[in-house]
Amino acid sequence: MFKASDSLVQKESIEAIQTLLRPALDELTLYLDKQVGTFESQIQSLVKYCLQNNGKRLRPSLVFLTGQTNDSAVFDELVRVSAVVEMVHIATLVHDDILDHADKRHDKPTIASKYGDHTAVLLGDALFSHALHLAAEFDTVEVCRLVSKSTRRVCAGEIVQTFNRGAWKLDMDDYLETLDMKTGELFSVSTYLGALLSGYSQEECMLLREFGSKLGIAYQAYDDLTDFLGDESNIGKTLGTDLETGKSTLPLIQLFQSADASVQQEMMAALKERDETRVMNILEEHSMFEAGIAFVYKLVDEAIALLKQLPENNPASQNLGNMGTILRSKLQELEARRASR
Amino acid sequence: MFKASDSLVQKESIEAIQTLLRPALDELTLYLDKQVGTFESQIQSLVKYCLQNNGKRLRPSLVFLTGQTNDSAVFDELVRVSAVVEMVHIATLVHDDILDHADKRHDKPTIASKYGDHTAVLLGDALFSHALHLAAEFDTVEVCRLVSKSTRRVCAGEIVQTFNRGAWKLDMDDYLETLDMKTGELFSVSTYLGALLSGYSQEECMLLREFGSKLGIAYQAYDDLTDFLGDESNIGKTLGTDLETGKSTLPLIQLFQSADASVQQEMMAALKERDETRVMNILEEHSMFEAGIAFVYKLVDEAIALLKQLPENNPASQNLGNMGTILRSKLQELEARRASR
Repeated sequence: MFKASDSLVQKESIEAIQTLLRPALDELTLYLDKQVGTFESQIQSLVKYCLQNNGKRLRPSLVFLTGQTNDSAVFDELVRVSAVVEMVHIATLVHDDILDHADKRHDKPTIASKYGDHTAVLLGDALFSHALHLAAEFDTVEVCRLVSKSTRRVCAGEIVQTFNRGAWKLDMDDYLETLDMKTGELFSVSTYLGALLSGYSQEECMLLREFGSKLGIAYQAYDDLTDFLGDESNIGKTLGTDLETGKSTLPLIQLFQSADASVQQEMMAALKERDETRVMNILEEHSMFEAGIAFVYKLVDEAIALLKQLPENNPASQNLGNMGTILRSKLQELEARRASR
Repeated sequence: MFKASDSLVQKESIEAIQTLLRPALDELTLYLDKQVGTFESQIQSLVKYCLQNNGKRLRPSLVFLTGQTNDSAVFDELVRVSAVVEMVHIATLVHDDILDHADKRHDKPTIASKYGDHTAVLLGDALFSHALHLAAEFDTVEVCRLVSKSTRRVCAGEIVQTFNRGAWKLDMDDYLETLDMKTGELFSVSTYLGALLSGYSQEECMLLREFGSKLGIAYQAYDDLTDFLGDESNIGKTLGTDLETGKSTLPLIQLFQSADASVQQEMMAALKERDETRVMNILEEHSMFEAGIAFVYKLVDEAIALLKQLPENNPASQNLGNMGTILRSKLQELEARRASR
């Protein structure tokens, strides 16, 4: 899948994105820092701890890559709306870390491990509320309507995933819908609001929203694959968390879709015994990681194809295209790790 | 404190309130039932379970008692806004029940005990989000701004309370501020929005907001006293939950404010040993329950005094006055239970 010429394209994409994003993300950091002081004094230090993480700021990046960052009035609104989506995302992480009993997030102890579940539940709630409060500060009520509805769908997605624990033979459509709810939703809100605030046409806004959703599904499917194969950030980290918690993802779903009954039985036995090595070997023997990676490539390509429908002068086309290229390069790395196992 | 003539006033107050509230709360129930179908299909049964509780609907009652319920356009808006505040309240209860490891709420198993903490955290989040989504459906963005800010303050109040666990010698002002954050806040949003949507003057709106805050503080202080003395709904229920969880409330705070050093030492020893009987006896010996009840009476009176400043034709004056009367009657019952211990 890897072509030699790709590496140059990727390098250019990463540089183009960094040039655009660095000042924008710096502005976001300043804005988030300022938010800390607007919380009740008793919880400001906790809020600061959550907001000053070194997360990837993917959702804000999508806002900026979609929008008109060279128009200063629009840029200010993009900063505010990127803070809203990032804060919703951070709130979900604070709650996720309770549920997953995670000790660390971005190399810092989680709120739950540092201050207890009690505080983590409430602080996540306070962050959610503040995000919606910021959303309500826009003149148009649409930001608040959209963000609140999306937040609800993200939570619903997480609940569905919880319900599906231990259900290894998951339907592919159900899996993809959950990915869309969990990750596609906030990605698509980011691109849609970036477009809306930039004054793009209704058609462009809807296209960019669909792109966000597709890219989010692709990104989450990629992320699920890294739970088996690792990524650059979790070398030395325990993999197979999803297996342990009974979460069925892409390669398993594809195996149960395509393999013979005997292979399926063998896999079920390995899953039942939580025999990670055996699970990995069966998946590898039946080329399920290759199939999974190919599946995600296809999703990324479909997302990028949507951008081709945008007018040529729309900056989102090039910028988000670069984002797609970067995800493709991550998939290449994954493929290389798989091959060298 | 109890006067024989009071019982007639109370009976009239309760009847007046019931006549006004029954159709309004029925309408709210219908509205909440309809909301269930707007959630993602996979979580509708859970949402239904939460919304169909037999809670007291205190916050919606405040909305209706404040507003112009005889104007049908206003009434529709009051129903919607009462659904918003009630849904925020229910979301906080779903989360509280995780933290308190409560098995039952309103005679039904809690979400946390029935479906696990994981689902309870996420479902509470979904309810919060939906409440904010309903708030965003008003033409004016103010409903969303106010509700999101209040929700944040309620959570901050709960966090402060968590931080204070085990700090028995609590400052009275800090205690009252926490009551305002935890309960006064949503009470005051209920009265304020009821007033705003009814087209009352800015001055009336602010007065009613202050009334809500005062009444909320009084109600929460009363509720804290019932943890020692019981109320009609928890006969046979375990009392002293607050003592067990290290939560210092009114009678303890007053004791540490007023008693001799030796008494304080004795109390500290009893608290350290979690000796509930001894704690109760010391409080009783030093008339701390009487002092606490008197303190709450004063708060209720201050709240009712605010209503006197409203124009005579404002229906909230009479209706909310009746609410105050009912809380006074609850205090009388508490006093009677204390005396008969």
